[in-house]
Amino acid sequence: MIFRRVIAVFLLAMGKFVKNRKVSELREGDGVDDIFFVKFKKGVSSYVGGFSFELTLSDASGKNIDYKYWGGKDEIKVKALYDSIYPDSIVRVQGKISSYKGRFQLSANEPAVVEVLREGQYDDADFVKPAKRDVDTMYVELLRAVASVKHPKLKVLLEGVFNDKELAAKFKKHPGAITIHHNWTGGLLQHTLEVLSYCATSLENFPTLDRDVMYAGALLHDIGKLDELAVTSRIKGTKKGQLTGHLVLGSVFVSNKCDEVGLEETVKDKLLHILVSHHGKPEFGSPKEPMFPEAVVVYYADELSAKVAEVLDFVEDSKLETEDDFMYHKRYAKNILLK
Amino acid sequence: MIFRRVIAVFLLAMGKFVKNRKVSELREGDGVDDIFFVKFKKGVSSYVGGFSFELTLSDASGKNIDYKYWGGKDEIKVKALYDSIYPDSIVRVQGKISSYKGRFQLSANEPAVVEVLREGQYDDADFVKPAKRDVDTMYVELLRAVASVKHPKLKVLLEGVFNDKELAAKFKKHPGAITIHHNWTGGLLQHTLEVLSYCATSLENFPTLDRDVMYAGALLHDIGKLDELAVTSRIKGTKKGQLTGHLVLGSVFVSNKCDEVGLEETVKDKLLHILVSHHGKPEFGSPKEPMFPEAVVVYYADELSAKVAEVLDFVEDSKLETEDDFMYHKRYAKNILLK
Amino acid sequence: MIFRRVIAVFLLAMGKFVKNRKVSELREGDGVDDIFFVKFKKGVSSYVGGFSFELTLSDASGKNIDYKYWGGKDEIKVKALYDSIYPDSIVRVQGKISSYKGRFQLSANEPAVVEVLREGQYDDADFVKPAKRDVDTMYVELLRAVASVKHPKLKVLLEGVFNDKELAAKFKKHPGAITIHHNWTGGLLQHTLEVLSYCATSLENFPTLDRDVMYAGALLHDIGKLDELAVTSRIKGTKKGQLTGHLVLGSVFVSNKCDEVGLEETVKDKLLHILVSHHGKPEFGSPKEPMFPEAVVVYYADELSAKVAEVLDFVEDSKLETEDDFMYHKRYAKNILLK
Amino acid sequence: MIFRRVIAVFLLAMGKFVKNRKVSELREGDGVDDIFFVKFKKGVSSYVGGFSFELTLSDASGKNIDYKYWGGKDEIKVKALYDSIYPDSIVRVQGKISSYKGRFQLSANEPAVVEVLREGQYDDADFVKPAKRDVDTMYVELLRAVASVKHPKLKVLLEGVFNDKELAAKFKKHPGAITIHHNWTGGLLQHTLEVLSYCATSLENFPTLDRDVMYAGALLHDIGKLDELAVTSRIKGTKKGQLTGHLVLGSVFVSNKCDEVGLEETVKDKLLHILVSHHGKPEFGSPKEPMFPEAVVVYYADELSAKVAEVLDFVEDSKLETEDDFMYHKRYAKNILLK
Amino acid sequence: MIFRRVIAVFLLAMGKFVKNRKVSELREGDGVDDIFFVKFKKGVSSYVGGFSFELTLSDASGKNIDYKYWGGKDEIKVKALYDSIYPDSIVRVQGKISSYKGRFQLSANEPAVVEVLREGQYDDADFVKPAKRDVDTMYVELLRAVASVKHPKLKVLLEGVFNDKELAAKFKKHPGAITIHHNWTGGLLQHTLEVLSYCATSLENFPTLDRDVMYAGALLHDIGKLDELAVTSRIKGTKKGQLTGHLVLGSVFVSNKCDEVGLEETVKDKLLHILVSHHGKPEFGSPKEPMFPEAVVVYYADELSAKVAEVLDFVEDSKLETEDDFMYHKRYAKNILLK
Amino acid sequence: MIFRRVIAVFLLAMGKFVKNRKVSELREGDGVDDIFFVKFKKGVSSYVGGFSFELTLSDASGKNIDYKYWGGKDEIKVKALYDSIYPDSIVRVQGKISSYKGRFQLSANEPAVVEVLREGQYDDADFVKPAKRDVDTMYVELLRAVASVKHPKLKVLLEGVFNDKELAAKFKKHPGAITIHHNWTGGLLQHTLEVLSYCATSLENFPTLDRDVMYAGALLHDIGKLDELAVTSRIKGTKKGQLTGHLVLGSVFVSNKCDEVGLEETVKDKLLHILVSHHGKPEFGSPKEPMFPEAVVVYYADELSAKVAEVLDFVEDSKLETEDDFMYHKRYAKNILLK
Repeated sequence: MIFRRVIAVFLLAMGKFVKNRKVSELREGDGVDDIFFVKFKKGVSSYVGGFSFELTLSDASGKNIDYKYWGGKDEIKVKALYDSIYPDSIVRVQGKISSYKGRFQLSANEPAVVEVLREGQYDDADFVKPAKRDVDTMYVELLRAVASVKHPKLKVLLEGVFNDKELAAKFKKHPGAITIHHNWTGGLLQHTLEVLSYCATSLENFPTLDRDVMYAGALLHDIGKLDELAVTSRIKGTKKGQLTGHLVLGSVFVSNKCDEVGLEETVKDKLLHILVSHHGKPEFGSPKEPMFPEAVVVYYADELSAKVAEVLDFVEDSKLETEDDFMYHKRYAKNILLK
Repeated sequence: MIFRRVIAVFLLAMGKFVKNRKVSELREGDGVDDIFFVKFKKGVSSYVGGFSFELTLSDASGKNIDYKYWGGKDEIKVKALYDSIYPDSIVRVQGKISSYKGRFQLSANEPAVVEVLREGQYDDADFVKPAKRDVDTMYVELLRAVASVKHPKLKVLLEGVFNDKELAAKFKKHPGAITIHHNWTGGLLQHTLEVLSYCATSLENFPTLDRDVMYAGALLHDIGKLDELAVTSRIKGTKKGQLTGHLVLGSVFVSNKCDEVGLEETVKDKLLHILVSHHGKPEFGSPKEPMFPEAVVVYYADELSAKVAEVLDFVEDSKLETEDDFMYHKRYAKNILLK
Repeated sequence: MIFRRVIAVFLLAMGKFVKNRKVSELREGDGVDDIFFVKFKKGVSSYVGGFSFELTLSDASGKNIDYKYWGGKDEIKVKALYDSIYPDSIVRVQGKISSYKGRFQLSANEPAVVEVLREGQYDDADFVKPAKRDVDTMYVELLRAVASVKHPKLKVLLEGVFNDKELAAKFKKHPGAITIHHNWTGGLLQHTLEVLSYCATSLENFPTLDRDVMYAGALLHDIGKLDELAVTSRIKGTKKGQLTGHLVLGSVFVSNKCDEVGLEETVKDKLLHILVSHHGKPEFGSPKEPMFPEAVVVYYADELSAKVAEVLDFVEDSKLETEDDFMYHKRYAKNILLK
Repeated sequence: MIFRRVIAVFLLAMGKFVKNRKVSELREGDGVDDIFFVKFKKGVSSYVGGFSFELTLSDASGKNIDYKYWGGKDEIKVKALYDSIYPDSIVRVQGKISSYKGRFQLSANEPAVVEVLREGQYDDADFVKPAKRDVDTMYVELLRAVASVKHPKLKVLLEGVFNDKELAAKFKKHPGAITIHHNWTGGLLQHTLEVLSYCATSLENFPTLDRDVMYAGALLHDIGKLDELAVTSRIKGTKKGQLTGHLVLGSVFVSNKCDEVGLEETVKDKLLHILVSHHGKPEFGSPKEPMFPEAVVVYYADELSAKVAEVLDFVEDSKLETEDDFMYHKRYAKNILLK
Repeated sequence: MIFRRVIAVFLLAMGKFVKNRKVSELREGDGVDDIFFVKFKKGVSSYVGGFSFELTLSDASGKNIDYKYWGGKDEIKVKALYDSIYPDSIVRVQGKISSYKGRFQLSANEPAVVEVLREGQYDDADFVKPAKRDVDTMYVELLRAVASVKHPKLKVLLEGVFNDKELAAKFKKHPGAITIHHNWTGGLLQHTLEVLSYCATSLENFPTLDRDVMYAGALLHDIGKLDELAVTSRIKGTKKGQLTGHLVLGSVFVSNKCDEVGLEETVKDKLLHILVSHHGKPEFGSPKEPMFPEAVVVYYADELSAKVAEVLDFVEDSKLETEDDFMYHKRYAKNILLK
Repeated sequence: MIFRRVIAVFLLAMGKFVKNRKVSELREGDGVDDIFFVKFKKGVSSYVGGFSFELTLSDASGKNIDYKYWGGKDEIKVKALYDSIYPDSIVRVQGKISSYKGRFQLSANEPAVVEVLREGQYDDADFVKPAKRDVDTMYVELLRAVASVKHPKLKVLLEGVFNDKELAAKFKKHPGAITIHHNWTGGLLQHTLEVLSYCATSLENFPTLDRDVMYAGALLHDIGKLDELAVTSRIKGTKKGQLTGHLVLGSVFVSNKCDEVGLEETVKDKLLHILVSHHGKPEFGSPKEPMFPEAVVVYYADELSAKVAEVLDFVEDSKLETEDDFMYHKRYAKNILLK
């Protein structure tokens, strides 16, 4: 067996540590000197040699690895080290991969390095899954959809929103969800374009649909996710996101934008309705069900984009873990066919 | 049998017609000259003697009566009269009560009076159920609750809302719902006080509750109903109310008020959550379920006030219609005991 | 008032009666001599002048009109006439439109014509809603989709099915449902193309989808409707359709076709699964939920096509009946916005 | 690190061991000589040094701690010791606290003391959470409510029940539930008073409510819990409680009491209905939903008291375990906000 | 057309009127002098000739017929006649059958006879559907099942219940439900025997079942229906039945019987559980689901007996009304095949 | 303590290893040389002495035991051994039973035997639970039911199916389900007979039922399970079974058999409906609910047989694991009483 040594290279010029190998690529026996984010802290224990602690580490691969630090007898020192680490901290750690109960574990003995990095010392992209398509290209496509809207005030509203530099920068990188679907850099943008693509097809099938209202609804339907999700070293729900949700956060945002541009009440009501109803049913979080055709389209377009993406990802991930024909999907409570 | 003649008295001094007898008080054989609002229009028909039309009339008693106008052979004249009437019009009509299939019917032969009144010619109070308690007294109680809030910015926010003259005038008279509960002048105000009363009792039982957040939540929980319901000659859902609902309309309103007074994010999040979650479950229209104790209190307090009021009204109304022990409640899909 | 006389023109050359005006176009006072199909028979009654009977008539407009035949005192004759008429009979009737309780009614006095037509004396197209797009054009599009499939045996299977002349003739004209959506000549074909269009868009969004399986599934997903629905003078559910449903009828059909061409078990299993799961959830009639991405696509594509078509039709129909902003949709148990 | 030694003091005068420190207060390194109750037995195993066994211990704090006894090579002796212990036994044990996988563990080596105590050797109060309010004061309040009932036979019935010395003694100490809410000495009593307090407030809001029926219903609504729950060294469901439930057990009890005092059938029916319907919905265990206003009040009052107590306790407990903003509540399947 | 005259024959010897023809046998043109029970009263109206009133009449056939009494101008006299009639009154009426809107109607002109009969003037059997099997034979079968129980105290309990003469007399005649299934004289007894027959078959399939507990549970499972349903001239729910239900009424009864014979707690708990759980699920009214095999058997045996009886009756009744293949079953919300 | 040595005896004559003791009979300290099937593979780990792997083993007792193989330092050799083993392999292993965390564990040190057996080297009956009744006797009973059918073509159909030697051989041994009920050799056959027994009893209770259709439906209702489940060394769902289910697989099979014998459409439709509806409700996997009495019988008969068998087995199994009164049944989400 050949031990491969994995080294975290400090890029002097950029002042940054770069991620070397993904968690999903680590193998038994590997020596590790790499950067991770801290998902959970699991407490300090005593053992015969002194005091140890455990962490769960992760990175953009979405896979976790347990980390065990075997410190010495100086309890205060080990505790201080442990206390310096917070959930979502980015840490540089050295150690070695072993397997325990069939799962890999990264372990290290004092005085191996466990070091919390400051913002700027690492690249965010190492900790959130990378975009599947180029975000700038996608944003151009989105702006083309904005430009195609003919209703004057709706167009002003949409341009005001999507030409805003700060919002654009955020929208380009934002994920579409925490774990379920489009949970990568640019995921929200890609999801929005997919929803638009089903709207376009619907327009070909049903030419009497109101294109402008439908497109505006599709473009803005998940805008509240900018406030609902926060991307630090990983994607997390914000407090306000958990307490009120992106439907209401988005409604407040869009309602105010409508008032700013003086949008007609009739169109404003429809636009807000699309936001409020785009989860389709109360049990999925929509206080109102879709009440007109364009809202029906956005609801199903959203489902199609999200559900297909989710199942495709689930199949891809599961194939790495099993050679069985099926994998059980807990939240769906059903088996998914893998081949 | 003695026919009682019911006359609409034109109060010259005030320039107003006053309602004489409620629909619920009309009896077979009564002659009628009174004012009603038009609930439904039911079309023009031809009959042997010419052209007739039908309306359904109602008033603050909440009871309906069918109205049949037997016009002459001049179709254009009858149609013109019919077309001058709109749903929610207030009309003065003359006619006589008969019974048809066990239901009362008001009928009139041309040239009996059917006259659409203009705003100002009648008193709104005749067409929405009257307040059960004095609205000014109740509003004083509400302001006392506002004044009892200690958190400085919450207090400023609440005072800003409830001392606003226009809003106060509207809030005093607004009903709590279209038909289900507290559907009378001042119903929203009375319901809000009842919710507050259960919050107060909860505070005695559970002194660790955050009084200020809970009271602010209770005071504002149904504020969106000011936009969701409109009171013309009867209580109706507004278009925006139907499309987005009072939870979202209220959230937009309160969110902006929070920003105006610079409320701390933590408190704002809680306040909005109480609004968003006060229906308790997604299937009742809340995109989020109550997530902290004060939100739990407001949810159940809202239920207690609404459900008890509804069942009490249902019992009272049903007793007028039957001597049976039970009356079937359609929306609840269960029998209610009447005695 | 001007009475317009509507005459059923007997096209001698073709030996056919042609429909003159749709039920939806009839107005009070119109004289009528036209053909309809019989939706319900409502029994014979006696009246002062003798014996009368009632029918409910309809045509391709989907609207109903009550028909009242005032026969003479010869009970046996009136009964004989009544007994000659069956539900789904095509009848030629003469009469006049009046309105009763705000609804139109067609009435006739003996000896007005009430005549049951034989097949061949009328054109089916008068009794089922006409195609919205040219059925031959659409079928060409469908065959193009068949031709685009690359998997050899799947292609043979699909060509075997869709090049079959008898099936093709039936498929071109078949409706997609009885009343809910695509309930017109060619509705099934148009619906199938719409489902395919959403599959195509999904393929652009998610290029790893298995195009051939997805297209074959989309093409065949509703094939069981050919047995589930029968088109006589109106669309009806067949007995076998009611007892087993198009999912199972289609599965039996496709299973046998797979065996004929010797399709690999893996692909056959997937194809049958798409049929069986395309209603998405058990409560919508699918014994299995979609278990792989292509089945997920077909499910949502089917929903999108069906639901948008249904709501658009509902809006269009409702606008003819009301000027209100909303119309209550019973099966959905919610209001639909009309403008 | 300073090891604190915790000693179980045998109070000679009273012949009782007293609890020294709660499980929730134990810390790594503590020496322990204290009394606990046995929640689970987990079996005997062999290890290199002989035979060991494990127990889960608990006390009134509601927290558990795993206990590991490392016995010697005499298997029969270790087994005999293990077999002398039953679930719900009160044991005195000596040992020391260590941490294992981030959880505390209490372990002891033979010949440390593991001794089963007999009833009388310990104080029950050490093993059920203590009352939050003085039970005698609360019972006086309850009797005041009984005394306020005016309906003669209802009053006799209630006095007969609550003045019964045996029942009073039991009712004073009984908990309101096993784990969910009011699970402490006097919890049932405190819960009953809370329900009464919401009834009183309801009476102020809705003066037409029948005070006597409502109060009697509130006082007796959970009386079946006296049979449904048993308090030994911990709160447990009884066999009859699990098989029939407190609604039915209470109904049998109250039905017989009604017959004893000769209560009018009308009032008896209402009283039983309040018991039977006080869970509000079939899915919560009520075979009948509340059918009159007083039953509606008792249902929601019960919910308010129980749910607020539960969430408040959950927040308090969770704060001890995490510094996160939210804690997931499994049975509710939602996050609860902690700050 | 030949008018058949139907005469109510007063049996002088017995002092009773006997029912002549069932409602279901009446045909247009029939003259009627027969006895019915009054299902609904529908109010007094004025018409050109004076005052009329309407009733809905019924009998053991379960079919209804509307009755219209055209009285003279003496309002007080007509009202007095109307007021002498109560729901559930047995009336002798004279009149003639006509058809109105396709439904039969029985009408009479003053001074035709409308006479309320006193108990004793008619035979109950004319107003509740007759037994399908001989009730005495069936009761012998039931007593044989009682005798077969071996557990001494259970046997004493069952004998005490079923040998009680008063109870036996009632049990023999009692129906199994108001309308849904076994709604005929002796229906409860027949249903109980059917449940027993499935228990017997289960015992053959699963010989380890506890025969005595299962049989006792089956024999007593619906005993509460003796109190829940009352048979006057028709089957009605009692007030206590509606408010508490036969599960709880039966539990109270059986619980007391258990105590009388000193049944062991273990067996009593099981017996009560079978009663309480025999509707299988909370949503069907059982506060507990079946928790042991014998309770599972009784639940499904009850379902089998009830559901098959209901569907068979539905098919039989529907065939009289339609020649269609299917009839829609409202409560089941599905079509039932009729042939 | 006496160590019992358990030896796998190689039956030379038959060339087979025979199972010695069931997993459920193994006790701590036992030496083991026996055959098992492999349920799960749990990976290779390194430990101080080299490389180890874990398996979960099982047999016809349905109980599992963890197996730990402590190999030497030659990683390649241990991996090769591990890789030679597949889920469902039958293995002969030597080792010794110890207990770990209260659970038994079978462990072995290199060079203990771990040997994968080929088909023919073991007897299937050792790995699937044995029949509870003699399968040949049961099949005779089934053929008697076939012979009792009078409808000529149905009889031909049933004889064609059940006299087929290959099918008969399979049907005799097939289990009724994977784990839930009748999961033993001949379970499907025994279940089918139980369903027939409830049909027979139903016929006595309701003589108008169509015996032939009901019996044919009962005999064929689970025929699709022959394709849905596969029995190797254990019972597994097949891929096609998971993707389409036995309702649809059975429908395809029966539909073709109907066509072969030329069964009347009316009877075929009914037969297929019984298959399709025999799970009773969509949420249990039936796309159609039972629509005629015979289908209702088969549905409830299937439930009775399955549910009683399941609960009886659950009680029997649970008694081996606990002395508590109750055991929690996860899938049912309720407690089951054990005594």
